[in-house]
Amino acid sequence: MKIIVDAFGGDNAPLEIIKGCAESVSKFGVDIILTGKETKIREVAVENKIPLDHIEIEDCDDVITMHDSAESVVKTKKNSSMAVGFRLLAEGKGDAFLSAGNSGALCVGATLLIKRIKGIKRPAFAPVLPSVTGCLMLLDGGANVDCRPEMLRQFAVMASVYMEKVMKIDKPRIGLANVGTEDHKGTELYRETYGILKESKLNFIGNIEGRDVPSGICDVVVCDGFTGNMILKTYEGVAAVLMKEIKNIFTGSTKGKMAAALVMKDLKAMKNRFDYNTYGGAPILGASKPVFKVHGDAKAITLVNAIGLCIDYVEANAIDVISASLK
Amino acid sequence: MKIIVDAFGGDNAPLEIIKGCAESVSKFGVDIILTGKETKIREVAVENKIPLDHIEIEDCDDVITMHDSAESVVKTKKNSSMAVGFRLLAEGKGDAFLSAGNSGALCVGATLLIKRIKGIKRPAFAPVLPSVTGCLMLLDGGANVDCRPEMLRQFAVMASVYMEKVMKIDKPRIGLANVGTEDHKGTELYRETYGILKESKLNFIGNIEGRDVPSGICDVVVCDGFTGNMILKTYEGVAAVLMKEIKNIFTGSTKGKMAAALVMKDLKAMKNRFDYNTYGGAPILGASKPVFKVHGDAKAITLVNAIGLCIDYVEANAIDVISASLK
Repeated sequence: MKIIVDAFGGDNAPLEIIKGCAESVSKFGVDIILTGKETKIREVAVENKIPLDHIEIEDCDDVITMHDSAESVVKTKKNSSMAVGFRLLAEGKGDAFLSAGNSGALCVGATLLIKRIKGIKRPAFAPVLPSVTGCLMLLDGGANVDCRPEMLRQFAVMASVYMEKVMKIDKPRIGLANVGTEDHKGTELYRETYGILKESKLNFIGNIEGRDVPSGICDVVVCDGFTGNMILKTYEGVAAVLMKEIKNIFTGSTKGKMAAALVMKDLKAMKNRFDYNTYGGAPILGASKPVFKVHGDAKAITLVNAIGLCIDYVEANAIDVISASLK
Repeated sequence: MKIIVDAFGGDNAPLEIIKGCAESVSKFGVDIILTGKETKIREVAVENKIPLDHIEIEDCDDVITMHDSAESVVKTKKNSSMAVGFRLLAEGKGDAFLSAGNSGALCVGATLLIKRIKGIKRPAFAPVLPSVTGCLMLLDGGANVDCRPEMLRQFAVMASVYMEKVMKIDKPRIGLANVGTEDHKGTELYRETYGILKESKLNFIGNIEGRDVPSGICDVVVCDGFTGNMILKTYEGVAAVLMKEIKNIFTGSTKGKMAAALVMKDLKAMKNRFDYNTYGGAPILGASKPVFKVHGDAKAITLVNAIGLCIDYVEANAIDVISASLK
């Protein structure tokens, strides 16, 4: 299997990306194509003693930054590490493409450069978040701020396949994000979608509220991209603030440090459980080839985990299963 | 000043409500009218040795539960503790009304039984949440799932007055919830509202993302009720899950208990800072008289804090200021 990786996406690129690729080669036995400025990649690899076995480099000059528009990937920055990654994937030079770069550009590229699965209205950005009992997929996480009921139904179908085939969850429980559990709650979009999901063959458990997102009562939360983005980032923001407060307690005083020594193992386990790095990759579901968004803050371990998920996605033929499930 | 309180609203009613009222009488020197079944209130007061000085009781039989529809307050349950509270407020028997009961019913009652401030399109449910630097008001928190730009502008005006007059924040910073900071982000509702807020005299700081909600970068987050409810409950859900995880670490082992003893003071301070009980009351902004929703899980201290805010709201003539600011 050959995975294409954007060497210049994310806050810690290219070092952590190159490191993550090298670790993935040795962990999974995959081949990798890194896209980006070759001289820089080789320089960083040498400086940090990172072996580049089984890693090819596709040289290109440009980089899409967080300040570039989403459309830059198809317009002004066709020679960027991200656009070139998409081109290689479209040409069949690799089995999947990952980038920790600009999410908007990645969604636009997945839609316009890779095309959609036949029948799919719009691809969705589908991050996996930690929950009390494991994890859940939230989609759409921000690719489509305006949605119609049929789009939400397709999101549910795609996520159900992903959670079953890649995350190995039997009969994934699908929840519809809403302001209350009763079927008449929410806007017209949500009332209509409720009816459609209820009639579907999916394991639809009904409406779920914001407080249920981390509680583990469902495996998939379906919503429009505006709502999903607010849930996703509120989740990350609140978790980050509380983790920082805890860290301050344990580093701010001698007593704190003594306490930390006593419970360090448990604290670390908790931090890991609620760390997005564990589920580093968010697929762009609906693209006709595997495209993964890696968290912008990705470290090497994030990338390794994301590549692991990517391999499972490819091996499970999840895109063919999604395609068949839509009918 | 005389405050009307629904004795049978919330999970811990009537005991914690009665207790909170008695404490408020002694703390603030206010008079209180409790609505609800008089025999039960007197029985609970005697059993728990709670003095009922300066507390009148308006006897009524019925209670609106969490399972009742929002409309029950004006239709099937006109003799409930909540509906009677609204009647007393409308008749001018008290200066403000508080309930920890059914939020939907409270919003409907505030709109239909108390009426709106002249010019206000729709009252908003406006909870105050903790942030890293203090607190912020989020509105609409769920009263109106469908909103128009003018409604969002009014929410911003009302919240700005509230945060200035009641929470004593100078020139409250108003943020618009959105999926990105650029002015073209979001749905049509948000793009239009952005333009309107930018032209207003409010201290509008622009779009803010979900992760900024707890970070303290603004004092007010404006959004439609669907989005606001998802933010509010995701915030509560994530905070609750993490606090429980921390509690488990400190109670689950001998080492944990030893560590807890060392940092108990700091942990409690953090818990208090992120505890909604501190900001126990969410005003229904836009109602022509002060109506406060108290958290459903309210303890006596929650009610005391909410009554304190309520007194500030009445004394600041905030409703007159809002009315003048709308023009």
